[in-house]
Amino acid sequence: MTTVPDKERLPAQVGFAVEIDKLKRVLRRNTLMDGSRRENDAEHSWYLGMLAMVLGEHAPSGTDLDRVTAMLLVHDIVEIDAGDTFIYDLAAVEVQEKAERAAADRIFGLLPEDQTAAMRALWDEFEERSTPEARFAKALDRLAPILANHHNEGGSWTRHGVTADQVMEKVEIIREGSATLGEYATEIVELSVARGHLARSRS
Amino acid sequence: MTTVPDKERLPAQVGFAVEIDKLKRVLRRNTLMDGSRRENDAEHSWYLGMLAMVLGEHAPSGTDLDRVTAMLLVHDIVEIDAGDTFIYDLAAVEVQEKAERAAADRIFGLLPEDQTAAMRALWDEFEERSTPEARFAKALDRLAPILANHHNEGGSWTRHGVTADQVMEKVEIIREGSATLGEYATEIVELSVARGHLARSRS
Repeated sequence: MTTVPDKERLPAQVGFAVEIDKLKRVLRRNTLMDGSRRENDAEHSWYLGMLAMVLGEHAPSGTDLDRVTAMLLVHDIVEIDAGDTFIYDLAAVEVQEKAERAAADRIFGLLPEDQTAAMRALWDEFEERSTPEARFAKALDRLAPILANHHNEGGSWTRHGVTADQVMEKVEIIREGSATLGEYATEIVELSVARGHLARSRS
Repeated sequence: MTTVPDKERLPAQVGFAVEIDKLKRVLRRNTLMDGSRRENDAEHSWYLGMLAMVLGEHAPSGTDLDRVTAMLLVHDIVEIDAGDTFIYDLAAVEVQEKAERAAADRIFGLLPEDQTAAMRALWDEFEERSTPEARFAKALDRLAPILANHHNEGGSWTRHGVTADQVMEKVEIIREGSATLGEYATEIVELSVARGHLARSRS
């Protein structure tokens, strides 16, 4: 028996591909590192995929880095319907969760059934942070804006009045994914405070 | 012996991460599917990573899809220095190759030595198309703008006077990576011609 690629699955797959192009138009709160404009979810997801490749050695040994990458590429797709939520806006975060689950149903549901299930499982795993892969992926997702703000004189921290205490809660999530990256993020945050780019506490 | 993550490698890795943020500012000739603005290399690379996940089953059996994804995430980084070249501008393509090799030396060279070599090997493999992984990755890179132009009434084909004969040369590259996707791309091109969104030949 020869394997026949299932051409009949292509219309659904391409329908999904056309739909997710919209992720390039979902804007995040932070800017590019040079501060020139706000970042969008698609380029952010690429960036995280690259961080997984470059910083993967700092994940706990045995972490499946290919699954980390896959999770990171998929993790924001639900924001096509649900929009981006600023992680320091706690009330919005709760409402957001429901909207994101509905978005996952609709968007992943465009794919053939087996792929719908696979994408949904990846996204659920990321959200639940129940595996080393998900915890490392989430760590990179939290590290990226810290890197960007650190290299952009405070960036969205300054604009939105975020304090070091609040950032350190996110650093805790980084530490849960990678001890080394957690330590590194702590140093960056301290440096940003010392340089006057991040307020220690609400004034 | 416990494994100690090498924290000393972090400054070079973060230096690379800061540098590649610039890929978000390298613009391509084609637009987003809705035509609202030109696409940048970073979001394009994310998109190709997603295509590898979603269309991976159409690669020749045995293709290592994780390496395809890695190649796609990395493939355009050299354009930070070398810029984007329109694939229908053949004179520019030759000059471009030299500039891209110099860019690969500089940018991948920011990483620790072993990672420099690994990234460079991935990029060389993609450029040389000597493996099924590289041929499939290149097929997706060629398929994406065809999908976008098809869904955007001709898009960059119309604006730059590209003809179906020229697009069919790119389809040949798709076919070399995946028979199914090559066949599918041929159908899309024919449909675009039939709808008047792509000229059959130069008028």
